[in-house]
Amino acid sequence: MSSIELKPSFTPSSGASESPDTDAVIKALSLIPHIEGGYFVETDARVGSVGDIPIHASFTFNLVLFRDPLLIPSPFPEDPASALMPQRPGFNSAYRNASTSIFYYLTPISPQGNFHRNRGRTVHTLHRGRGVYVLIHADEPDLPGGGKRIETFVVGSNVAKGEKLQWIVEGGKFKASFLLPDDAAGTEKTSGGLLISETVVPGFEYCDHDFLPAGGLPALVGKEKAEELAWLVRKA
Amino acid sequence: MSSIELKPSFTPSSGASESPDTDAVIKALSLIPHIEGGYFVETDARVGSVGDIPIHASFTFNLVLFRDPLLIPSPFPEDPASALMPQRPGFNSAYRNASTSIFYYLTPISPQGNFHRNRGRTVHTLHRGRGVYVLIHADEPDLPGGGKRIETFVVGSNVAKGEKLQWIVEGGKFKASFLLPDDAAGTEKTSGGLLISETVVPGFEYCDHDFLPAGGLPALVGKEKAEELAWLVRKA
Repeated sequence: MSSIELKPSFTPSSGASESPDTDAVIKALSLIPHIEGGYFVETDARVGSVGDIPIHASFTFNLVLFRDPLLIPSPFPEDPASALMPQRPGFNSAYRNASTSIFYYLTPISPQGNFHRNRGRTVHTLHRGRGVYVLIHADEPDLPGGGKRIETFVVGSNVAKGEKLQWIVEGGKFKASFLLPDDAAGTEKTSGGLLISETVVPGFEYCDHDFLPAGGLPALVGKEKAEELAWLVRKA
Repeated sequence: MSSIELKPSFTPSSGASESPDTDAVIKALSLIPHIEGGYFVETDARVGSVGDIPIHASFTFNLVLFRDPLLIPSPFPEDPASALMPQRPGFNSAYRNASTSIFYYLTPISPQGNFHRNRGRTVHTLHRGRGVYVLIHADEPDLPGGGKRIETFVVGSNVAKGEKLQWIVEGGKFKASFLLPDDAAGTEKTSGGLLISETVVPGFEYCDHDFLPAGGLPALVGKEKAEELAWLVRKA
């Protein structure tokens, strides 16, 4: 597996306030809480104008325009269960936007993103901070010893030490992430947050997304690893 | 237009060496010189394995696997001139990879990317450094006074000052960029380079890309603005 310690450095605290610096980032980017944990916003894709209003790249105005206007045929088989998922107005399951982009931000008081999966590929790129990503390769055959392959890596700006600035996760993998202190060696365990961009190809739809259900880990990775990773599963 | 000064802070110098810090980034990410100026590498898209070899996200190994394996129908009309462009082995003009991703790096001795255009959308995200982007909206009607709309903005990590961490450029725009000093206010004009990721949707092909030809600016933006921007046009 790996020598990366799979233990939280920060504990979620729903009552607490973000630090002023962290709060300034949340406000400057108009971020809102994300159901996976952390904060996010869908970012505008247009550089152009609507009527007389010039629209700047990454300018946030409404949900429809956050999406790549290019539609492509959906590469995914229709899932009957998806009819039960929330859907955007105008969504047609035969098509997908070519891509969608968001900011995603883990902070000391919202420090983890719980295991979830998308049918599309996600390109992640780092703006600031450090964290750990944990992937469960649920789409691969079981390992010889049983259970799915688990992959962990550190994302951060120290590329000379192998920290990743860009990491691409193909569809079908369960993914979780958690915040690390900014200073890898220091004794002060503080963080200005882990701020990244994510571009999903084809574009994000609720019906292509699912959480790892509570209690679902042992069947995927075996009892021992399930206990190690249980804190990264969304509570039912 | 804008109050951003369209003058170089750094001058390209083909003979000089990069600083040790800049060189460390180039080596850690296996970057190579880019025809637009700056450095780049196509990054691996796979998280998985090929035979017995585990493949990590962003691990660089060969050109074929750098690309999203998902193919989509090409949304672009066939361009007869594209038969004259260099093509990847196996390229079929009726299809495109759903996306491709690269690192792109401007440095003090390779400090600008000259005007070029792609038919697809490009999602840019910042890792480090500061710079200016200049867009010529060649796909829009002429402005009332004549010439195409020009847009300029600063990319950098100071989001509170409006610097952009993520900027999305739709297809059909001419785009140039140049490096700014890391410290906006300081007297020392130094830079560790502007390092970004770019994800192109649909994926990059030479036949979807062109440079603004030398002498092509006046017809697009008029004589006065053409003189101001001429240093960002690739020499013939």
